[in-house]
Amino acid sequence: MQMGKQSLFFEEAPYIISSANIVGTKEGMGPLKDYFDVIGGDDQFGQNTWEEAESTLQKEALTMAAGKAKKTMEEIRYLFAGDLLGQTIATSFGLMDFKIPLFGLYGACSTCGESLSLGAMCVAAGYADCVAAVTSSHFASAEKQFRFPLEYANQRPKSATWTVTGSGAFILGKEKSKAKITGITTGVIEDYGIKDSMNMGAAMAPAARAVIRQHFKDFDRKPEDYDLIITGDLGTIGQEILIKLLKDDRYDISQVHRDCGIEIYDSKTQGTGAGGSGCGCSAVTLSAYYLKQIKEGVLKRILFVPTGALLSTVSFNEGMSVPGIAHAVVIEHEVN
Amino acid sequence: MQMGKQSLFFEEAPYIISSANIVGTKEGMGPLKDYFDVIGGDDQFGQNTWEEAESTLQKEALTMAAGKAKKTMEEIRYLFAGDLLGQTIATSFGLMDFKIPLFGLYGACSTCGESLSLGAMCVAAGYADCVAAVTSSHFASAEKQFRFPLEYANQRPKSATWTVTGSGAFILGKEKSKAKITGITTGVIEDYGIKDSMNMGAAMAPAARAVIRQHFKDFDRKPEDYDLIITGDLGTIGQEILIKLLKDDRYDISQVHRDCGIEIYDSKTQGTGAGGSGCGCSAVTLSAYYLKQIKEGVLKRILFVPTGALLSTVSFNEGMSVPGIAHAVVIEHEVN
Repeated sequence: MQMGKQSLFFEEAPYIISSANIVGTKEGMGPLKDYFDVIGGDDQFGQNTWEEAESTLQKEALTMAAGKAKKTMEEIRYLFAGDLLGQTIATSFGLMDFKIPLFGLYGACSTCGESLSLGAMCVAAGYADCVAAVTSSHFASAEKQFRFPLEYANQRPKSATWTVTGSGAFILGKEKSKAKITGITTGVIEDYGIKDSMNMGAAMAPAARAVIRQHFKDFDRKPEDYDLIITGDLGTIGQEILIKLLKDDRYDISQVHRDCGIEIYDSKTQGTGAGGSGCGCSAVTLSAYYLKQIKEGVLKRILFVPTGALLSTVSFNEGMSVPGIAHAVVIEHEVN
Repeated sequence: MQMGKQSLFFEEAPYIISSANIVGTKEGMGPLKDYFDVIGGDDQFGQNTWEEAESTLQKEALTMAAGKAKKTMEEIRYLFAGDLLGQTIATSFGLMDFKIPLFGLYGACSTCGESLSLGAMCVAAGYADCVAAVTSSHFASAEKQFRFPLEYANQRPKSATWTVTGSGAFILGKEKSKAKITGITTGVIEDYGIKDSMNMGAAMAPAARAVIRQHFKDFDRKPEDYDLIITGDLGTIGQEILIKLLKDDRYDISQVHRDCGIEIYDSKTQGTGAGGSGCGCSAVTLSAYYLKQIKEGVLKRILFVPTGALLSTVSFNEGMSVPGIAHAVVIEHEVN
């Protein structure tokens, strides 16, 4: 096992056997609309509450991903899963019927990176032939959780991001596929003292910078070694900050940087402020858009870096800052 | 690597190099008062808010545990940590200054079992020489989160449990000590449709039963193979249900069963209802009380089974049930 300060290199890299994604109506009208597996007819997905709707997203994403991988639920040994809601109830109620041993995770919007990291570690260690990583977010349940119920018609500043309604599920395992996870760099919490919960891109950019910089050091690589470096949901403001911060570290990622939050909506016509956000943002964008390009070999190697803002309404109301965390995952095209 | 359906047996068992615990005033007046490392003079621990107080518990517990293990923070490669609060803010704000790569977890009151499991997996796989597992809860922050702020002087039914104010931290690694983790059984969510959030023992007992039963099958063991089988926070009502349910499965654990929630308070004189609860309950009771007996060889082998109730105020108010989850960890005395 090769290791860097915060990194693991997998000698026998676990494969992403399959993935699946499901999104809401707004995502289904955005630039990536042709790539998603399922676009809901409305955002309630047949449920009575927004939280149940979000649970349904996880249930559907995992069911589809397992189907694509031709795996029964019994063959999936562990679930690594989480969401943004208090006590991660979307995950608990979404996945409980599957009766698969569950490691519940909370990493805010970085959870997709955390779940892929732990899932890959688990498979690479030989603890499982097959595991699943599942994350979700829902615009309406997140607004209710973090801001105001939609019925209040609250206004938002332009720096605010728009929580993606969607869930992405990934089946990882030893079975060969065209995409593999060759390494991970696990992030630490970075706190630059930002207190504006409506500007989460700025709050998360330092964490993305720290983990990407450490990744380059641990792997002895530079931006040009990646076809793309893809953050989770920094949005337009966070992207600018990230690129600038990494320039201070003498890394120029401006040519290869993408952000799932920027890609998923057309902010100009969709009124989504600085971009998309939420656990579901990076998960569905990776599953629907980037992973396809990896599997086809259009992209050979990417660094996928979901970013999370570690706040709650309680911490915010108590005047605490909004620290960030980000986890980096190296995903490569498998040639053979 | 030997494996059962939901279990892993570690051939090279990771050691619990050290652990530390800190509790509040009520715990410091209970039956285990002589065992705790630190008992706070008041429950605010010098902070302005209950949430910051809980963060301080994690910070102190980890600092003490690292000190006992003679490890610097740089030597701890990963943190596996969580708490009960929405978006696990006690963990984020408590551990961020350490700058250690963090895997944030949410498993309700089962989180101590989840963190020990993932930490042990990580060390046994060779991913780290040394990791830390940290969990906490605080009576006042939990009441505010799940029930009512203390100032409301809300009354509680006798079936309710009392959230423990405390944090336990465990340093796991390859370095030999007198206690080791020889196996784990990872739980699935069990939902018996219980909707009474004031009777969490009943809600969690089915999950404890399921994971203990599966553990016996996977390890081909029976209750007599353990000196003690210790659940997290079922309390008196949950204990009765668990023993009965396992009798239905032809396992009689009545002689060896203990529950941290029952041990930590004297319910008759302390007014703690059915017993203690919270992430901190099992963590501090293991650290202060049972682990000492393991290290001394008074106990040779225990099954430690933290139990979690997967609810939030939102799920409860929306009329959802309270599903449970539990994770089992085998801890053994190291003879050499």
